[in-house]
Amino acid sequence: MLVRCTCRFSSRLASSLPCRPVYEHATRWRQAYSSASHAARAQLDRAIRQPLLERMPSSGSIATAINQPLVGAVRVQWPDGAASSFDYMWLRDHCQSSESMHHVTRQRLLDTASLSRDLAPRAIDASSEGLKITWNDMDAHTSFYPWQWLRRRSYSPSLHCSPTFDKHLWAANEMQQSPPIVDYASVMSGDEGLLDWLDKIHIYGFAFVQGVPVSPEATEQLIRRIAFIRETHYGGFWDFTADLAHGDTAYTNLALGAHTDTTYFTDPCGLQMFHLLSSRDTHEGGHSLLVDGFACAARLRADSPQLYKLLSELPIPSHASGDANALLRPLRPRPALEHDDEGQLISVRWNNDDRAPIGQGKSWQGLWTLDDGRRVSRVVAFYHAVQAWERIVRSKQAEYWTPLEPGKALIFDNLRVLHGRSSFTGQRRLCGAYVNGDDYRSKRFLLRRRLGKQIEDDAVF
Amino acid sequence: MLVRCTCRFSSRLASSLPCRPVYEHATRWRQAYSSASHAARAQLDRAIRQPLLERMPSSGSIATAINQPLVGAVRVQWPDGAASSFDYMWLRDHCQSSESMHHVTRQRLLDTASLSRDLAPRAIDASSEGLKITWNDMDAHTSFYPWQWLRRRSYSPSLHCSPTFDKHLWAANEMQQSPPIVDYASVMSGDEGLLDWLDKIHIYGFAFVQGVPVSPEATEQLIRRIAFIRETHYGGFWDFTADLAHGDTAYTNLALGAHTDTTYFTDPCGLQMFHLLSSRDTHEGGHSLLVDGFACAARLRADSPQLYKLLSELPIPSHASGDANALLRPLRPRPALEHDDEGQLISVRWNNDDRAPIGQGKSWQGLWTLDDGRRVSRVVAFYHAVQAWERIVRSKQAEYWTPLEPGKALIFDNLRVLHGRSSFTGQRRLCGAYVNGDDYRSKRFLLRRRLGKQIEDDAVF
Repeated sequence: MLVRCTCRFSSRLASSLPCRPVYEHATRWRQAYSSASHAARAQLDRAIRQPLLERMPSSGSIATAINQPLVGAVRVQWPDGAASSFDYMWLRDHCQSSESMHHVTRQRLLDTASLSRDLAPRAIDASSEGLKITWNDMDAHTSFYPWQWLRRRSYSPSLHCSPTFDKHLWAANEMQQSPPIVDYASVMSGDEGLLDWLDKIHIYGFAFVQGVPVSPEATEQLIRRIAFIRETHYGGFWDFTADLAHGDTAYTNLALGAHTDTTYFTDPCGLQMFHLLSSRDTHEGGHSLLVDGFACAARLRADSPQLYKLLSELPIPSHASGDANALLRPLRPRPALEHDDEGQLISVRWNNDDRAPIGQGKSWQGLWTLDDGRRVSRVVAFYHAVQAWERIVRSKQAEYWTPLEPGKALIFDNLRVLHGRSSFTGQRRLCGAYVNGDDYRSKRFLLRRRLGKQIEDDAVF
Repeated sequence: MLVRCTCRFSSRLASSLPCRPVYEHATRWRQAYSSASHAARAQLDRAIRQPLLERMPSSGSIATAINQPLVGAVRVQWPDGAASSFDYMWLRDHCQSSESMHHVTRQRLLDTASLSRDLAPRAIDASSEGLKITWNDMDAHTSFYPWQWLRRRSYSPSLHCSPTFDKHLWAANEMQQSPPIVDYASVMSGDEGLLDWLDKIHIYGFAFVQGVPVSPEATEQLIRRIAFIRETHYGGFWDFTADLAHGDTAYTNLALGAHTDTTYFTDPCGLQMFHLLSSRDTHEGGHSLLVDGFACAARLRADSPQLYKLLSELPIPSHASGDANALLRPLRPRPALEHDDEGQLISVRWNNDDRAPIGQGKSWQGLWTLDDGRRVSRVVAFYHAVQAWERIVRSKQAEYWTPLEPGKALIFDNLRVLHGRSSFTGQRRLCGAYVNGDDYRSKRFLLRRRLGKQIEDDAVF
């Protein structure tokens, strides 16, 4: 499994590995990990599993603080030698007192806009527990920041490594041998089983559930374990056969290449579930295809960094126009490969069929340097990128083919795993539904917190 | 009403006005318009209303085309002197034939990735109707592109001005005098009434519906005229009193400053409806506040361009953590002011209460130049921006206060209009719902097409 994140508090082995590795570093990291001794590996495992903050001593004066009125900030000196600067405004704005932040909702009650520009500490006190500031405002408001809370939110500089990258990027043969599977009974019976399912989806981008009663009702109950169903112009929970309903080729018996769904939404659907309700003898063909889009992206990045960059920058317009009652387009087109503010890939959005005319807008103007050094227009470079991307997506290494089976529901992360199918003849009854990505991530976060597991990005408020 | 978009085909008056004006040009445009003669104004109105393409002659050879094998493109010479270059790959990729594009769904059937790099026209033919290309592939596929279709999608260069900016940015006193109102009976009875409602929401960012039966059922039927209701962790259609349900201060009787809702979603809710079900004598206070976020943004841009830029770039993290069953954060934080690829403002996302700790991520690192030339950290600059923004949002000019009334439903565009309320005492029963922005825009597009009205961005496929 790929791991990510080494930080100032972690072991020597960990700190010899790249902090915030990009994909091309993943192999190096894996090699370092697999060549480490058993003891070093265990140490590394602990360092990764244990959240940064818990590695700080829980008592004793562990940091000192100095008021710096000339720069309008408080400087905190940490015991490991690092230092952070916190602007007065930031400190007051992030005050955790019950007058400043609602104790139930964790919503800010403080009116940030009305803070005085002359705001400054009247007194600061670095105790063993944290930093206490008494402010120079009318009512001498007092703020208290536990050291762990403060360190985790240090921004000048940021002392926090990106969340552990614990997604496992896979190749098809590996999934042929041991795809992620959970039991229906386990998912339905308790939090542990449900979290195991969600963790598998998080790690692999998909998972099967076996032993599902072959009915739409049971399938719907299963997906509702995660969250409510996302309604779209297709409706809510589906139960369909091939009839070109909703004016979309998905509702035919045609073969469909690997794609992600609903690229034409501002927020494409997060999870998708399929469950075959017909027995295998009612139709021929219609095998399902799954491709790990994050693994393909890592390969594209290694093979053709310039084309990867292009697919990370060019907003690709898309549309759904087949249904007389819907004409959908995202508020703003997004690139095929979208990254967060740290440059970490967060979503793949790729459906060549739903792509609208390209070339309009500033991002499409100008030239682009291909990986071989040639300069071409961005439109021409885009077609190079499409071909390089599809070559990877359609490779034997990437294409994981699997038959759907009654009783075995498939769920996948539509922002990571592309799906498709071979054409089929005969009758095929399939049911399924979408769940919002936001609600899926919410559920997993809450379950991990409830069950005392590490949470990737825990500094929520 | 502000208008936007002049293009090469429009009148002399129009072409003397700025193409793609930014907000600071709006006043200049309005002045030019209001100082124009009646005849010139009528001409301008026609030029703006009439879509670009319809202004091209519908018969006669209006363009010529030259194959340019050395650059791999076809050059089209338009009768007005403009010329466009279309790459072979682009042309083949955008082929409109029934083999290349599904005739019902308008989805691409062509496999772009498998196109040969040697693809080139065997013959090109510029007829009076359009451009015909016979390709050098095995089956000598023929593509045909009507001139109007082709011109509208010209990308090298782009010959299309941004869609008409027909939103009316308002000040409070104007809305006090004549807020946009439609009749319930009209909305419920036919397409014209429904479109009138949606157009008012589009133009003003909100509208009242009067004569609504005072029941949750009628209110729900009303909003379902637009689209299905967006379900969230709050549920679907609401009917609530102040009980801090769902762990959010919105469910209290506290005053709420102007904000947009659900900033913690990847795609915040597009439309929101409120309908008061209690008579006014059951409570005191609780007046509603509406603020035109786009007008405030225009003012901020004029007053403090650097702070405007900062709010357009800094991703602002947010969260909803009050409900034990939800912990919501967007997949990726977005800036308060988000723009499309042409630099046009498309959404305002602002809720200081739901803002999560700031400062993490690359966008927050480094210095920023304030409008007075001082260089400060981006975190400090952000607090300047918050104060400048809120000063505008809370100004008399911006704050439109209005009592809610039973029978008069309020709907607003949550990506543009901020809302709030004064505190209240007593019992207040309110119902309402969210609709997705994508589905609202879809409905309006389809209605305008059905009723033969101009559509802002008509080049869908």
